Amino acid sequence: MVNNIDQYRLIMNTPAQLNPPNPLLASRMLRLKSSLVRDILAAATQPGMISFAGGLPAQDLMPALTVEATTAPALYQYGNSEGEPAFRQAIAGWIAESGPAVRPEQVLALAGSQQGLDLVAKLLLEEGTPMLCEGPTYLAALQVFELFGADIACVPLQAEGPDLVAFEHLLETHHPRCVYLIPCFQNPGGACYSPEARVAVAALLDRYNVLLIEDEPYRQVSLDVDHPMTPICSLLKHAPWIYLGSFSKILWPGWRIGYLAAHPSLLPHLVRLKQAADLHTQRPGQMAVTAWLNGASRQADLARLRAGYRLRRDAMQAALQKHFGTLAEWSAPRGGLFFWLKLREHDATRAVLDRAIQRGVAFMPGEAFFTNPAEGRQYMRLNYSRSTPEEMDRGLAILAECLTQAELAVC
Amino acid sequence: MVNNIDQYRLIMNTPAQLNPPNPLLASRMLRLKSSLVRDILAAATQPGMISFAGGLPAQDLMPALTVEATTAPALYQYGNSEGEPAFRQAIAGWIAESGPAVRPEQVLALAGSQQGLDLVAKLLLEEGTPMLCEGPTYLAALQVFELFGADIACVPLQAEGPDLVAFEHLLETHHPRCVYLIPCFQNPGGACYSPEARVAVAALLDRYNVLLIEDEPYRQVSLDVDHPMTPICSLLKHAPWIYLGSFSKILWPGWRIGYLAAHPSLLPHLVRLKQAADLHTQRPGQMAVTAWLNGASRQADLARLRAGYRLRRDAMQAALQKHFGTLAEWSAPRGGLFFWLKLREHDATRAVLDRAIQRGVAFMPGEAFFTNPAEGRQYMRLNYSRSTPEEMDRGLAILAECLTQAELAVC
Repeated sequence: MVNNIDQYRLIMNTPAQLNPPNPLLASRMLRLKSSLVRDILAAATQPGMISFAGGLPAQDLMPALTVEATTAPALYQYGNSEGEPAFRQAIAGWIAESGPAVRPEQVLALAGSQQGLDLVAKLLLEEGTPMLCEGPTYLAALQVFELFGADIACVPLQAEGPDLVAFEHLLETHHPRCVYLIPCFQNPGGACYSPEARVAVAALLDRYNVLLIEDEPYRQVSLDVDHPMTPICSLLKHAPWIYLGSFSKILWPGWRIGYLAAHPSLLPHLVRLKQAADLHTQRPGQMAVTAWLNGASRQADLARLRAGYRLRRDAMQAALQKHFGTLAEWSAPRGGLFFWLKLREHDATRAVLDRAIQRGVAFMPGEAFFTNPAEGRQYMRLNYSRSTPEEMDRGLAILAECLTQAELAVC
Repeated sequence: MVNNIDQYRLIMNTPAQLNPPNPLLASRMLRLKSSLVRDILAAATQPGMISFAGGLPAQDLMPALTVEATTAPALYQYGNSEGEPAFRQAIAGWIAESGPAVRPEQVLALAGSQQGLDLVAKLLLEEGTPMLCEGPTYLAALQVFELFGADIACVPLQAEGPDLVAFEHLLETHHPRCVYLIPCFQNPGGACYSPEARVAVAALLDRYNVLLIEDEPYRQVSLDVDHPMTPICSLLKHAPWIYLGSFSKILWPGWRIGYLAAHPSLLPHLVRLKQAADLHTQRPGQMAVTAWLNGASRQADLARLRAGYRLRRDAMQAALQKHFGTLAEWSAPRGGLFFWLKLREHDATRAVLDRAIQRGVAFMPGEAFFTNPAEGRQYMRLNYSRSTPEEMDRGLAILAECLTQAELAVC
């Protein structure tokens, strides 16, 4: 077996060192960074490690699977590339609860929403294609978009949405083919777009007729937002859109079930790309999700899940106030799975990470979430959903010591 | 719902008509053909249709799933990109039974072997990359390779392997970066490489140091081959290789479980591409396959499956002799799921397909399996695993009538 700490060290090398030009490989491989989340996760599986690094949801808060839904011999055979009819029907209803109104024929079953990013990249991106993302943004999205050669500009993100002046300026000057946004509990920053920001962004996308890729993995992990979170794609008048959703934060991520819905002009292309990618999404997982969506326990399951996450979020907030009060600034997230900290005095998060992993604590350095890693050196992302209050207290105390030692070392 | 016959008609249009240049989309989308198998399959799901078109394995011959292996809450959480350790271990043993000897660390779990083709294409292919395939070859492989822009040359395939003179000539003149081969019961032609051909191909690949992509979906559907079928990659001395396998012909294709093993220099790149594609393969399906691989019923299950396929293959052979004796030439396949017919007098398989679908019989026209479709006009591929002897008799009688009518129409 690979030694995970060594693997982690290898991965933290620069892409240039990792990917020397190799005449055997396609040139895009020079651009393929490892997904830091996945690789630090590997380090984080060492016994005894306290991990704030990944985005693992809390397994004890997931509803139990309806076993009978998944094991029927009728699901043994190959299925449709688009997805099971019952799944597409249930997803259309699920999406419509918050908008946009989509027909089942607009839904495509995915092996998790990460697959949606892969299909979208194939559909839209080639070397030099201009696009916009939020800065910071989801690192595995950056990984795919960069693999396909996108020329990514980032719009600065504030707590209630993007800087609209910068956004319009980039629409005018960067001429993006598409814009990738995570308006609900953005990963990593935690921003939740206000209703006004949603309307304003939709109006800009319509005005410049730019395709929206709206990614919503965290919509259901909403802890205390008191305003509507209308999907931006349902506010668009004519700009095309692709809407990505996932069950990996509320049901069973190991089953890998996500979905997308798309403007009718785009779905046939995405279905063909899905055919070419893996023929179709495994059927039992689709039926497990369908059974949950059509079952009676859905509201109670979500209420219990949100209550559980609120307790953990609050415990993390208390532990952070105890150990990080003088070291960093942050807002307690209103949803999603992460705290996003801006360090006050120093920016050596990668040096700190080395030290922290040695002492049994993992976190995600901010650099991974920016196209220009230097912009992220003051930041760290901390997951709160996987640790007990005792682990939070102990892990954050160690992390604070690592930071302080790093400061001393720098002085 | 889409009308399947209309969908079929739409799909049979040329790629150029289907994919007008669209400034919104990446240029590779101009090259994305629909997978004819999947789309004719859609037409073939019409009630009452007799389908020889797809490659659906016989559901009644699949072993029952070990339910307990798949439903453990421990599988709810995210897993490893490489695959479950128990799965990788079991697959390494499974592969080693016929060679090559691989370590579990060389194995990557896939959502079906189609996903392996997608990862391989990303790894190796960009616009204009020269590669070799067999002619004819698997159409969904052509679909992916063409999507990524490969410049594909085809080596003519004979019953016992490729034309070696043509093969070496193409290695010398086309300078392929990689070669894609299906040496066991090739789809669609049914060829099974002889031991001598395997050795000769390996020697050529070593001499020219060209990467081999060896695809083995049908290895276990071996009906009456009396010589060893050593994988070519295990005969290579230094050329790099990627070996693709699938359970979709023997277990439960709807669960979408495949795997690849690769030369140690290539696996880390493929793991990263897998991360970017869908994070990891769903865990329950991996554990279902692992339970079967480690279980006691494996040999008996495979013996029963092969016996069942032999009966169907023989029934198809008898029905073909009855209805197609004067119309076509073919060899009864020694494995795999298909008969590959060369028509004697005419080449209008697409016109025949239109007529046949109207009369309730579906098949795959040969054109789909060639980079130059015109080369396939004399051929048709007929699946034998999904139909009863009565359906074979009735369906082939209708098909023979359609052919004869088409001949008359041409005269």
